[in-house]
Amino acid sequence: MNDSRLRMTKHHGAGNDFVVLGDLDDRRTLTPDLVRAVCDRHFGVGADGLIRVTAGRDGTDLAMDLRNADGSAAEMSGNGIRCLAQAAVEAGWVAPPQFTVWTRAGVRTIDYRVGERSGEADVAVDMGQPVLGPDQPQQFADRRARTVDLGNPHLVLLGPDLSSVDVAELGTRLQAVHPGGVNVEFVTAGPEPEELTLRVWERGVGETLACGTGTVAAAAAVRSWGLVGSRVRVHNPGGTLQVELGETGAILTGPTRTVGAVEVEPAVVLAAARR
Amino acid sequence: MNDSRLRMTKHHGAGNDFVVLGDLDDRRTLTPDLVRAVCDRHFGVGADGLIRVTAGRDGTDLAMDLRNADGSAAEMSGNGIRCLAQAAVEAGWVAPPQFTVWTRAGVRTIDYRVGERSGEADVAVDMGQPVLGPDQPQQFADRRARTVDLGNPHLVLLGPDLSSVDVAELGTRLQAVHPGGVNVEFVTAGPEPEELTLRVWERGVGETLACGTGTVAAAAAVRSWGLVGSRVRVHNPGGTLQVELGETGAILTGPTRTVGAVEVEPAVVLAAARR
Repeated sequence: MNDSRLRMTKHHGAGNDFVVLGDLDDRRTLTPDLVRAVCDRHFGVGADGLIRVTAGRDGTDLAMDLRNADGSAAEMSGNGIRCLAQAAVEAGWVAPPQFTVWTRAGVRTIDYRVGERSGEADVAVDMGQPVLGPDQPQQFADRRARTVDLGNPHLVLLGPDLSSVDVAELGTRLQAVHPGGVNVEFVTAGPEPEELTLRVWERGVGETLACGTGTVAAAAAVRSWGLVGSRVRVHNPGGTLQVELGETGAILTGPTRTVGAVEVEPAVVLAAARR
Repeated sequence: MNDSRLRMTKHHGAGNDFVVLGDLDDRRTLTPDLVRAVCDRHFGVGADGLIRVTAGRDGTDLAMDLRNADGSAAEMSGNGIRCLAQAAVEAGWVAPPQFTVWTRAGVRTIDYRVGERSGEADVAVDMGQPVLGPDQPQQFADRRARTVDLGNPHLVLLGPDLSSVDVAELGTRLQAVHPGGVNVEFVTAGPEPEELTLRVWERGVGETLACGTGTVAAAAAVRSWGLVGSRVRVHNPGGTLQVELGETGAILTGPTRTVGAVEVEPAVVLAAARR
């Protein structure tokens, strides 16, 4: 084994998938080209993002260096940090149940429960306090709308059903209205009480199978409209996540799954990249 | 390391990506569920297909057990066998430049050239003799059409341009017309003389970035219509492949790239699978 190899593990939370690279000595430099090459689903390994895990900062147990599939650095991902947690526990970098992770959006606390079967975990993370923008009723047909800030910007649109929504068309169009772009959640109440069903358009990505911050944003907005309480189950296309909206912040909980181990040689995966 | 682990390498030919599992002792059983779980791009590793490599049969050096991403067994893939060749050479199971591979579509001969950089190769494979079906002019609007058999069934549709083609819609619809399904190539001549540009719908997969047998089928059909000669460059969405249509069969040549190594535990990747 050559020491320049990137040894990673792949995980997903509700289908939102990440490759996680342990770099506790902080020796690795990730160029945008390398991140794009690794995350490319046909010319590389394939993932929604790459997470480099370094030693803690400011007293935390670990730190998260999160990159989007397009190579850009990101502040925070609710599913990404849950995948980081699973990689860290399985590699023995931290011990469950509780540990803290530095992120660009602040320090986050993980509450980790090992699952029944190998590769399964239920992972909770505090997501900070959602900051609601003003209500924007009737912005889109019969949908109620409001912005929510969770360290990244969201626009939550409530409607009677999701089947008739053109997520790509509306999601793309709304980018132009929101300087810097916005993550758009299309949400409907149900099917059961205290449940929501969601589709999400992530800025810089497109429609995804699940979005952790979007899930919390949707729960916070819909609670502000009085349709759910403080404990909400949110059905993302890739799986169901739970949100607890507390006095001091929101907690996001859900299943996290290990896929397997991945090793790439930077020069090789760069040579394989899309031209 | 647990012995039940599947140790694979990932490769692509023009963006047509495969995970390759060495099983020279023929001890592994691949269930459709396991293949689907591994090939899923969000809940698994992600690939167009999984190839199990076993010891040769009928005097060949190796044998190819090819599975589509949907779990079904496939006869032959031009890019898949080129990826198998790269995995086999890099693992030392065979020595370049020439070796033979048993496939469900017959015995294939590989001509392997190591590339300049690590993980790069140019790989040629004999694809057998394309068997042309009858011309079916005007089957779809202004497109000429004919079936081509390359061990697997193809329908080649020639048209003036590809930008207006709804590949998914037409590709799906044509499955119903062809019992057992069909791979559909939408092809246009150019941009240069002796070149074709192609988009492809693979049965059991969907639209892919490249298709080796489809590339040969397209070249053979378009030559039958008199628009190209016996040496054709075919631009697939993921890269360019070359076809030589000879007296005794077609040769497909193109770049093959190693992405990296992948290891999964069957029980774990199955637990991570899409519900």
